[in-house]
Amino acid sequence: MKRFLNLTAAAALCASVPAFAQEAITYPAPSEIVAAAKAQEWATIAPSDLLVMDLAPDAAGKSRHVVIQLMPDPFSQGWIGNIRKLATAKWWDGTSINRVQDNYVVQWGDATEKKALPDGLETVPESSYTTPLTDPFAGMLLFAAIVGQKEAADACNRKSEDKISDCYREIERQVMHRDPYGDLYGFYKGWPAGADPDAAWPIHCYGMVGVGRNLSPDTGTGAELYTVIGHAPRHLDRNIAVVGRVIEGIEHLSSLPRGTGALGFYESEAERVPILSVRLGSDAQNVPSFEYLRTESDSFKAYADARANRRDPFFIRPAGGADICNIPVPVRRQTAK
Amino acid sequence: MKRFLNLTAAAALCASVPAFAQEAITYPAPSEIVAAAKAQEWATIAPSDLLVMDLAPDAAGKSRHVVIQLMPDPFSQGWIGNIRKLATAKWWDGTSINRVQDNYVVQWGDATEKKALPDGLETVPESSYTTPLTDPFAGMLLFAAIVGQKEAADACNRKSEDKISDCYREIERQVMHRDPYGDLYGFYKGWPAGADPDAAWPIHCYGMVGVGRNLSPDTGTGAELYTVIGHAPRHLDRNIAVVGRVIEGIEHLSSLPRGTGALGFYESEAERVPILSVRLGSDAQNVPSFEYLRTESDSFKAYADARANRRDPFFIRPAGGADICNIPVPVRRQTAK
Repeated sequence: MKRFLNLTAAAALCASVPAFAQEAITYPAPSEIVAAAKAQEWATIAPSDLLVMDLAPDAAGKSRHVVIQLMPDPFSQGWIGNIRKLATAKWWDGTSINRVQDNYVVQWGDATEKKALPDGLETVPESSYTTPLTDPFAGMLLFAAIVGQKEAADACNRKSEDKISDCYREIERQVMHRDPYGDLYGFYKGWPAGADPDAAWPIHCYGMVGVGRNLSPDTGTGAELYTVIGHAPRHLDRNIAVVGRVIEGIEHLSSLPRGTGALGFYESEAERVPILSVRLGSDAQNVPSFEYLRTESDSFKAYADARANRRDPFFIRPAGGADICNIPVPVRRQTAK
Repeated sequence: MKRFLNLTAAAALCASVPAFAQEAITYPAPSEIVAAAKAQEWATIAPSDLLVMDLAPDAAGKSRHVVIQLMPDPFSQGWIGNIRKLATAKWWDGTSINRVQDNYVVQWGDATEKKALPDGLETVPESSYTTPLTDPFAGMLLFAAIVGQKEAADACNRKSEDKISDCYREIERQVMHRDPYGDLYGFYKGWPAGADPDAAWPIHCYGMVGVGRNLSPDTGTGAELYTVIGHAPRHLDRNIAVVGRVIEGIEHLSSLPRGTGALGFYESEAERVPILSVRLGSDAQNVPSFEYLRTESDSFKAYADARANRRDPFFIRPAGGADICNIPVPVRRQTAK
């Protein structure tokens, strides 16, 4: 099976391709950079920040587990508090996946819309779609380093608080205004985020989990969730709460039959996929440990650079850039340290 | 089923939402702009530019048809010539879908790699990944109009040939350098394309079809094809030939079980999905007519603007921009004119 669209195995093929044996330098693929990262460049994800969703077994009787990592402070914490309460109350048990829209989202929750919610859920204001960008929020400037502006970013970090906004704007003017969504973007605590000089917000990339809602001013409780299964719908950023990402088992959602109703909703009860249970990782049995590659680490910077400038043997022309959703943060089951 | 992530139906809901009944202006959703486009703004796709792939029926016995529109001149014509020959020779009949990699591609062709190719296939050079940008190639400048630089674009079009490149660069400097892949981008004859002052090339968006290949200088024949089922892998642009897009039935590919082998290849014969036949639309029976919204049309411009600045009732904050793969060109079955 040689004739493929190569992503990660090209380097391994080099030995059998004489033309490349003659080259003095071979560059590692992004996956190879990640595989070579040091143990301390990986950060453990706390079990209490995991949400484990067990779906009914598939037609062949195989179990289907989906693991979601909840967004860390300071993003979307109001909804995430609600989600913790809903999981602890076992509220999702017996609900279902109700919507699968191609190149868009898979959505789950209570199809009847009649199930009573647990007490004590917060009504989160729209202002929580963004997080005030207080100094120090230096992680956001990491992006500058990724695109070769490390010195400028470091200089900004050394400015006094009243100057840091101007400094941001200057970097933005120079380099960063290449995201069509119009703002800075970068990585913070292992998550892609957008920012302007005043605020930051999480971004809708593939696999991100968000909170369904009705029309404004409703912001959703967190009981109705969706995950992205297509091209990043960035127009939803700052319009809907992003609360996490699927880190294992997304194939159990992305490969579901598409719904034939409006917006991809399933039209019959029989099509819906039953949810057996949703638990916080700290309340579930046999949950593996997960870790993510620290976005402040040297290996992450090298990985991001390699995603933007593919130099591994398959590629003949590096792109010279990458949109933030084309630099997925590596997450894996934790290996022994 | 009210609590949803609304894409297209929000306007229809307005009547039941008092807060919006009080607003003087309501903006149409992108889908509503498309639905209101005039008949002459739609262009018929010639049956000879369609590729119809029939898969074996699914587990429930339902037929699975996938319709691909081949890329128009001047893009990728060497490979497309080969694809026409392969279809005419019924070469794909009895081959299979062999790879499904989540958030990446579905790939099909001869899993044995032993099936003889028909005579007369062209060996296409890597230079064909791009197309020289000769004047008039005015369609590429349409993008300038979409982002509010129509006057500048028109002015460029009026320049003499030796000045047009400089004019391009100036527009790029002013406005367009917001694509992280570093170049101009726009729409040409109904297709998303990248461009620099010298050349243009097709772009890997969701649903685009490309040509699998081995390591450079191999460019692939067109016998091994894939389609994108995840976030746009733009790093493949100019590294692999893009030859078309799936315009109907992508759910038969995107919802297939993910392969568990390296790169998402299926590990057993039983997992592969048999391809019953692939035919040019002009050689197939009962193929519906399709049409796309002309990317030069006023309705397309309004649609693209609305995709970049969602003002329909669900949205509280328009993005102010959109990446080109988040502005999918509308294609539909042809309606009676």
